[in-house]
Amino acid sequence: VFFQSPDQNCNLRIALALQHTRGHCTQVTSMHEGLDHVRILLQLCVDRYYISPGQTNAELFQRGLSCSYGPLGMELRRNLLEQWWRSVTSSRAQVFGINTLTSSKDRETDGWEQLRMVESEKLRQILEQKELNKEQLSQQIRVLLESSPSVRTDFIQGALEQYVPSVELVNRKLPYGLAETGLCFQPLDGSGCPAEFTQTSLVWFCSPRTSSQWLDHWTRQRLKWWRKFALSPSDFSSSEIQEEELVKIASRGVRISYDFPWGQETLETLWSRGDSELLQTHKGARSKLQCRDGRKSVPHVVSVTGNMDRGLMALLSNSLQQMKREDSKQKLQQRKVLKLHPVLAPVKVALDIGRGGTVELRQVCEGLLQELMETKISVWPGYLETIPTSMEQLNAKYDEMGVLFTVVISENTLESGLLQVRSRDTTIKETMHISEIKKFLSRYISAADNI
Amino acid sequence: VFFQSPDQNCNLRIALALQHTRGHCTQVTSMHEGLDHVRILLQLCVDRYYISPGQTNAELFQRGLSCSYGPLGMELRRNLLEQWWRSVTSSRAQVFGINTLTSSKDRETDGWEQLRMVESEKLRQILEQKELNKEQLSQQIRVLLESSPSVRTDFIQGALEQYVPSVELVNRKLPYGLAETGLCFQPLDGSGCPAEFTQTSLVWFCSPRTSSQWLDHWTRQRLKWWRKFALSPSDFSSSEIQEEELVKIASRGVRISYDFPWGQETLETLWSRGDSELLQTHKGARSKLQCRDGRKSVPHVVSVTGNMDRGLMALLSNSLQQMKREDSKQKLQQRKVLKLHPVLAPVKVALDIGRGGTVELRQVCEGLLQELMETKISVWPGYLETIPTSMEQLNAKYDEMGVLFTVVISENTLESGLLQVRSRDTTIKETMHISEIKKFLSRYISAADNI
Repeated sequence: VFFQSPDQNCNLRIALALQHTRGHCTQVTSMHEGLDHVRILLQLCVDRYYISPGQTNAELFQRGLSCSYGPLGMELRRNLLEQWWRSVTSSRAQVFGINTLTSSKDRETDGWEQLRMVESEKLRQILEQKELNKEQLSQQIRVLLESSPSVRTDFIQGALEQYVPSVELVNRKLPYGLAETGLCFQPLDGSGCPAEFTQTSLVWFCSPRTSSQWLDHWTRQRLKWWRKFALSPSDFSSSEIQEEELVKIASRGVRISYDFPWGQETLETLWSRGDSELLQTHKGARSKLQCRDGRKSVPHVVSVTGNMDRGLMALLSNSLQQMKREDSKQKLQQRKVLKLHPVLAPVKVALDIGRGGTVELRQVCEGLLQELMETKISVWPGYLETIPTSMEQLNAKYDEMGVLFTVVISENTLESGLLQVRSRDTTIKETMHISEIKKFLSRYISAADNI
Repeated sequence: VFFQSPDQNCNLRIALALQHTRGHCTQVTSMHEGLDHVRILLQLCVDRYYISPGQTNAELFQRGLSCSYGPLGMELRRNLLEQWWRSVTSSRAQVFGINTLTSSKDRETDGWEQLRMVESEKLRQILEQKELNKEQLSQQIRVLLESSPSVRTDFIQGALEQYVPSVELVNRKLPYGLAETGLCFQPLDGSGCPAEFTQTSLVWFCSPRTSSQWLDHWTRQRLKWWRKFALSPSDFSSSEIQEEELVKIASRGVRISYDFPWGQETLETLWSRGDSELLQTHKGARSKLQCRDGRKSVPHVVSVTGNMDRGLMALLSNSLQQMKREDSKQKLQQRKVLKLHPVLAPVKVALDIGRGGTVELRQVCEGLLQELMETKISVWPGYLETIPTSMEQLNAKYDEMGVLFTVVISENTLESGLLQVRSRDTTIKETMHISEIKKFLSRYISAADNI
């Protein structure tokens, strides 16, 4: 087992969580079960190509940071971001995507607390200047640092800067929003190692009198979105941020959290931020900022900021089901199924060949693979596997990968066109004609999407 | 006009290009026309929300670097990356996506030439330690720098590291590939400002004897891909990299270039890299690396690395058509049309209301907008515009945005269900029933996709 001990950060969280549940014996037990669940999940994520092996990598993942993702994790992250994008941009016609730069030289918010991108070579040149005294050396390093670009920690500043060019697009009519997804960076406490994470950001501009209603609207909308993909929707919750925790600029804030086995963690944060940052970014030029929504006013800003790496961990954790069952030799086995939502599952269907695989059967698989890929249904080419495996082992593997359906093509398919389709969620096997499978899968996925 | 002078880099390129065309008067003229074309294109990109305003931003864009993209540029970049992804991963079942980290602490390739992410605060603490002498100060700064993570310049090292976990996925059977897209960073000569760009990377593992054929295969495939989206396919070309330019590790290399008005620039580079880097990354552990393809061998690596920001600039430049025409008052006007390929065009259809817009007409538009968005056809909600504009002005605007079709809904639509559809490419207006428009657009786009 590659993953032996949860990281220190996690230990601390467990300790805190245990304090909360002190005296509640059943909850302590379920906490232990929960941590076992985490250990099993992380091992499964490595075995089934969700994340790359290595303890450091698994720790990054568990902390809600970007890690090195394997093919399945990468596809899951793509699907999740695509869903976020669709939900935010198609819910209202007035949301526009933008793309700002990772590093910036001229932001007024830059300070010493920032991460900066420094050219090693330039620093080396300064250090090698023998004629400098200590003060001159310090001074030159300060100048270099100040001229090095700082790295973004969120997308908010970038969106505030894009307010002026984008407001023309909506004819100065409120409300509207700017959306962006991508990597952001933060210095980590203690370890001192910078961390990257996949952020989703909606910066919503609205009239001052409606900002609190919009905060509620987006909270409802976002919570509904998370719960749509969950197996246990109640593990996702929202809570008002208490007055003493409010950041300087915000009049109200809401957190959307997930109940991990070690305690709650924040997936998204919504702030009602007023107009001060927008005014500051544009140096108080009120006339440039004014919009129409009933009367003229400088808009208030509501920000909706999510961490999709942590979201991915939450959804994986939420969708792992463990069931005890007897195998064909009546040994008790643990069956693990990753019941990811159909639109999120990185592989929708695995194609396999029954006993006696021939060249013709492979050709049928190739043809079906092409057909499914053209409809953008992701396929696992199980038929390429050359090492013989029992159907039972295969199903166990696909269940752990979260593959929705397994299609088995056999000699029978060549004669009658019939193939066998097994469902991950019901484990029921159905017989279907090869000409129906594409439509069946498309309908299944879009039905799940529209629930 | 915000864009007055091309940047210095560009001036140099022009000078060099002029040398080549010395004595060829017509070519010099077309060079001037070409630069005029660039100036007009950049202005159009700002006016039509492809890139954010500002001279620095336009210069980044022209240099083939990431810039701050507006809503249309962002959508075009999304579409382009999506097409790349589809073409690389669906062309063969054996290409898998991965996601590696931007910054890394333990890479052996790290050296002084790298960009590093430094925590300003830590550097400040060192600089403020009064008791240090100059040597101690230098030493502490060196240690800080060496422990700061370096930022990736390409995806190749990450893919080589992922070779071992991913090779199990294909049962050690060659060939297969690892694909990744995202931001990479490089220090810029001269200005010293780090630059980011959107890189696409396919790292292809194949048997030693087939690596040259695979290099040819991917060159053909990539060139075909670029040309598919071009208005003048011959502006995209491939050329073998000469022996004296070959990097240390490569036995062969190919460039795919675009003919910009100021000269050729590289969009993609393909290298046949042998096995030395793979062996080095995995410390010479041959047995871990060996694969089957006929006989056992350590695979050779073919890398296909593209710059999609420059690709975006190339495709925009290639698709801008300028035509002189007389307007209704017989004044000579310059008509500019951004003839982006239908699958790339960021907005497929604009919805507008004819004269006498009423609440009912708006409702029809809302309904149609929702219907089209569900089919993932991107719509421009022109009907929200409240400032009256002539149809002529609107068409000119949409042509510059590259909008494929303009749909006008009028009083007539309420009575008969008929609406008017204008094509960007033919400027022909057709009458169509409202129930047909969705199918018409879907078919048009997918037909263009399959040519």
